[in-house]
Amino acid sequence: MIIVMQPHASEAEINRVVEKITGLGLKVHLSEGRYRTIIGVIGDKKIINGLPVEVLPGVEKVVSVTESYKLVGREFKHEDSVIDVGGVPVGGDGLVVMAGPCAVESREQLLESAEAVKAGGAQFLRGGAYKPRTSPYSFQGLEEKGLEMLAEAREKTGLKIVTEVVDIQSVPVVCAYADVVQVGARNMQNFQLLKAVGKAGKPVLLKRGIAATINEWLNAAEYVMNEGNYSVIMCERGIRTFENFTRNTLDLSAVAAVKSVSHLPVIVDPSHGTGVWKLVRPMSRAAVAAGADGLMIEVHPNPAEALSDGKQSLTPENFAGLMREVAGIANLMGRRMA
Amino acid sequence: MIIVMQPHASEAEINRVVEKITGLGLKVHLSEGRYRTIIGVIGDKKIINGLPVEVLPGVEKVVSVTESYKLVGREFKHEDSVIDVGGVPVGGDGLVVMAGPCAVESREQLLESAEAVKAGGAQFLRGGAYKPRTSPYSFQGLEEKGLEMLAEAREKTGLKIVTEVVDIQSVPVVCAYADVVQVGARNMQNFQLLKAVGKAGKPVLLKRGIAATINEWLNAAEYVMNEGNYSVIMCERGIRTFENFTRNTLDLSAVAAVKSVSHLPVIVDPSHGTGVWKLVRPMSRAAVAAGADGLMIEVHPNPAEALSDGKQSLTPENFAGLMREVAGIANLMGRRMA
Amino acid sequence: MIIVMQPHASEAEINRVVEKITGLGLKVHLSEGRYRTIIGVIGDKKIINGLPVEVLPGVEKVVSVTESYKLVGREFKHEDSVIDVGGVPVGGDGLVVMAGPCAVESREQLLESAEAVKAGGAQFLRGGAYKPRTSPYSFQGLEEKGLEMLAEAREKTGLKIVTEVVDIQSVPVVCAYADVVQVGARNMQNFQLLKAVGKAGKPVLLKRGIAATINEWLNAAEYVMNEGNYSVIMCERGIRTFENFTRNTLDLSAVAAVKSVSHLPVIVDPSHGTGVWKLVRPMSRAAVAAGADGLMIEVHPNPAEALSDGKQSLTPENFAGLMREVAGIANLMGRRMA
Amino acid sequence: MIIVMQPHASEAEINRVVEKITGLGLKVHLSEGRYRTIIGVIGDKKIINGLPVEVLPGVEKVVSVTESYKLVGREFKHEDSVIDVGGVPVGGDGLVVMAGPCAVESREQLLESAEAVKAGGAQFLRGGAYKPRTSPYSFQGLEEKGLEMLAEAREKTGLKIVTEVVDIQSVPVVCAYADVVQVGARNMQNFQLLKAVGKAGKPVLLKRGIAATINEWLNAAEYVMNEGNYSVIMCERGIRTFENFTRNTLDLSAVAAVKSVSHLPVIVDPSHGTGVWKLVRPMSRAAVAAGADGLMIEVHPNPAEALSDGKQSLTPENFAGLMREVAGIANLMGRRMA
Repeated sequence: MIIVMQPHASEAEINRVVEKITGLGLKVHLSEGRYRTIIGVIGDKKIINGLPVEVLPGVEKVVSVTESYKLVGREFKHEDSVIDVGGVPVGGDGLVVMAGPCAVESREQLLESAEAVKAGGAQFLRGGAYKPRTSPYSFQGLEEKGLEMLAEAREKTGLKIVTEVVDIQSVPVVCAYADVVQVGARNMQNFQLLKAVGKAGKPVLLKRGIAATINEWLNAAEYVMNEGNYSVIMCERGIRTFENFTRNTLDLSAVAAVKSVSHLPVIVDPSHGTGVWKLVRPMSRAAVAAGADGLMIEVHPNPAEALSDGKQSLTPENFAGLMREVAGIANLMGRRMA
Repeated sequence: MIIVMQPHASEAEINRVVEKITGLGLKVHLSEGRYRTIIGVIGDKKIINGLPVEVLPGVEKVVSVTESYKLVGREFKHEDSVIDVGGVPVGGDGLVVMAGPCAVESREQLLESAEAVKAGGAQFLRGGAYKPRTSPYSFQGLEEKGLEMLAEAREKTGLKIVTEVVDIQSVPVVCAYADVVQVGARNMQNFQLLKAVGKAGKPVLLKRGIAATINEWLNAAEYVMNEGNYSVIMCERGIRTFENFTRNTLDLSAVAAVKSVSHLPVIVDPSHGTGVWKLVRPMSRAAVAAGADGLMIEVHPNPAEALSDGKQSLTPENFAGLMREVAGIANLMGRRMA
Repeated sequence: MIIVMQPHASEAEINRVVEKITGLGLKVHLSEGRYRTIIGVIGDKKIINGLPVEVLPGVEKVVSVTESYKLVGREFKHEDSVIDVGGVPVGGDGLVVMAGPCAVESREQLLESAEAVKAGGAQFLRGGAYKPRTSPYSFQGLEEKGLEMLAEAREKTGLKIVTEVVDIQSVPVVCAYADVVQVGARNMQNFQLLKAVGKAGKPVLLKRGIAATINEWLNAAEYVMNEGNYSVIMCERGIRTFENFTRNTLDLSAVAAVKSVSHLPVIVDPSHGTGVWKLVRPMSRAAVAAGADGLMIEVHPNPAEALSDGKQSLTPENFAGLMREVAGIANLMGRRMA
Repeated sequence: MIIVMQPHASEAEINRVVEKITGLGLKVHLSEGRYRTIIGVIGDKKIINGLPVEVLPGVEKVVSVTESYKLVGREFKHEDSVIDVGGVPVGGDGLVVMAGPCAVESREQLLESAEAVKAGGAQFLRGGAYKPRTSPYSFQGLEEKGLEMLAEAREKTGLKIVTEVVDIQSVPVVCAYADVVQVGARNMQNFQLLKAVGKAGKPVLLKRGIAATINEWLNAAEYVMNEGNYSVIMCERGIRTFENFTRNTLDLSAVAAVKSVSHLPVIVDPSHGTGVWKLVRPMSRAAVAAGADGLMIEVHPNPAEALSDGKQSLTPENFAGLMREVAGIANLMGRRMA
């Protein structure tokens, strides 16, 4: 932390700041310029990040130098992490594809979707059994019945299952069925849920919050890792901006940005990221070209009948076409597809 | 819902849309213009809001006509709601002030704060015992010990207690101590928590999410009311924008906007809304002038020692000054202060 | 400027940064911590702000300490500026109201509007003769004919005229008619226009850009003042966010924020700021309570017939009601109204 | 335009709306539902888009059905436009690369840059002679001297020149030197400038405004085309959001979005779009994979000495590496590179 004093801060003001800091067992580095004094703070991150020195008289500006996360950072682990999901690696030189309907609606719909995404080349089946919905009157999911259907689809196809958990109570039941537990965008800062999935130990897919900075997103991953669960997959899914042509603004620069500071794998969800099925294919290609470790794609056997997000779902035919295009880019990027 | 067909949509395409809608038991109104056909959908909101007709061939645009909420709306209840908190009304012609530290840090700090805000004229003591924090290494709150201190402060001062609940498990314990249960910005779309506080029955203070639209915020309130709990107080606390002079952008137009469509009372938190203590006083005046039913203000006996958000906390002296200024505006607005 | 080196920056890297800076005639202050070195840069702002040291090896972060503006700042002039507009002061202890139609549409419409706003208590008539419009097919204004009508309205009512200039060529003709020349939100970073109105010498009303930070807005004012024209009135008119209940998000905290760092007067335009006529009255009260030096309000004798922005215009009756309410707040704030 | 009346709108209110519309020579289509009446408006776009019916009693909502642009749309011209720049096509099955320094700083810097980008495979040299800068004290460009240097570089390398024009006065001189005239992000809604470059007839590169919606951006292009100049190249360069890891948020979905509704070619500027040189390479690959017709890249022989935007500039070596990677993606996308 660097504290920039005001141009005419008095010696007493400077001393008070210094005393406050050293009183907490931290060290200071004083740099007295002609016009202003700058105070560097050295010591334990935990204490430093909580210091409210902005309110002390004579202080103009406080600048944070170090990030507040640790385990997610490249300083903690330099090489890329590869998350093992029951034998399927996420990260590294492979490219994973997670596909399926937004919500599990029925046994038929799910099995049909599973066959289609398997045929297209996906390794994971996605599908929500618990759905967070803006309105209490929208379809909220089939809950445990939906999980059972997912398990049956896994049985039939060999696909791994990724599905969302929306509260602490259902962490055990979701973990009992899922191969990867998803924390959704609305729950990215539901810290109790992050701790719970951290303790549960299953691989976690952590979606970026709807208006979360990259730094907040990394800190959310830190909550999971801080409980001893190092299997975290980051998922960019668009951020909220003023643009309304798309449902969200898919921030592909976040892929390279996260990878520049963290060792965790990053996948991209262009279905929620754009909300427009016609844009899913070009943005899937772009995501892989940007360096993503995988894709999460909404596929529905009949988008016009979908109970949620039909507008952004691909038909099996479109998905197959997408996979062919993505394979070319993956190959160029030196990535294997299953 | 209104469905705008493409200029050259075929009769078959139009028929398919109509069949899909009527097949669900809904009615249609066809308006065939020279260039395009427009289809109005009439019937049960729940079914209509889930229709994914955008993906049907020939459809250009789908426009939602009705809002998805019901109980929070003026159509459901025309006159303003007044929430009774153990004898203290929120809404109506009074103006409530909730003040206190961001976090409960110690018995001394809390009691000192409570005396100060009581002296200043507040009716509620605010203070977090459970703190949602971006980093897992920041101070997370005193939990039940903090709740006990809040109860002691209530005992000593007669102030009502408003405090945050961050997960379902702690709903019972927080409700056992609090007069008003706060759902924070990060949990505004934690729908399980909304349902839980809805069932608990205590008055709920619902903060606007960090990037929530007014419509989403009202739907979140609908989740609480849909469980039978009609005592919901809305709290504007700033939204996330590109501006970084302030921590958030306090959206005071949301006060009048919510009141134009909903009967629920709205209060304003200029401390989180600006993040800068010098702006709290002018924005408190502005909030009351905009029609707010109350204020939530961070006050700390010693902001420079605060374990969280010291930068935006007022000293007791500053708070007393704020209350004097606000009283003048409240009076003009025809509102009584305690 | 403060340069934070990476934890393991080499001596050679540090030396290279130092040499680069000192080679430009600037001075450095070295603060060598246990883990990192921090380099403070001292000297001419103009040179410092242009330094691209982020790209030098070993540099982690560069922090700007001083703002790039000078003349608009409180360090340059401590007391509040009062802009004299032909005898009407803007700033200080008065409150000015600028009102009128969005666009000058006809002689009758304008004169009727002028009488109405005069009767309501405004000192300025606003009205656009040159209109920047998103679509080339929308009404673009009456141009010089519109200016002549504004002059006639001034003649008849004694109101001062504020009207927008949209390009350099028309600066002379607009200045020939206007008392205050407005630079609109879309032109806030049209730097050639800023220089031209700076040279023209007439008082300038500078609207905040649609997505401009407070810092960029102040720098835009600096462009005007740097040409020798110190008569600049800042006008907050809402910023672009994700919220779509309102046309823009009116950022009232910007009023107090600008005043905390600058001596310039700040007025508020709640008509464009909200885009909804029902919100104009509460937000006008709020603006004055927040400390604004004035208001800019759209008034139209017949909003339903307006060629532009009828949705946000007040009728003369509504305007008169607004003025009564605002007068009460102004009085409380210690401000005189004409 | 569709007008949704309130549930209990009276017949008189409905009639008034209908009369207002038909009085302007437009036609209406009435759809009387059980709960509400919906009025469709048919006729001349120019008149319809200006109708302020929201303020009429009984009106709940007004929905625009058609876009306000015409010439930029696929309805006007179905097949992709290819812009001819002195024999170099932009759009179609080629991929163009425009590269060079942010600003022309000196003859040596520019010629060295030109040789480097030529060697790397670019067809266009970019470089600003007129620089719009936030602060009046930052380097503002070499103006006509800079244009002369650009012409000399073209002479020496055969590269086409793209350079920015910042005001109407300099349109003639910039057109005299440039092959493509750039309108920058800050001037995207400087409508007089758009008209001026429309009249000048040179190919125009139109950057997206810093907070412009795709719809506003297309309307800005319409201003140019409406003057008879159909040679418009759209350039996505990032939008302003809350995220601050990057300078802007590069919106690659805008590439496919624009192409879905418009025939104009779209290129991408990942240098301004991210502001971080390390992200330029992955985002260049992603842009081409998303379907962009070209790239605009900042290259500087010595980024650490650059007078503007050094932080986001590539060295010639990095640029050469980028070009090799991009070539692979371009090839996959069926695009030729020069």
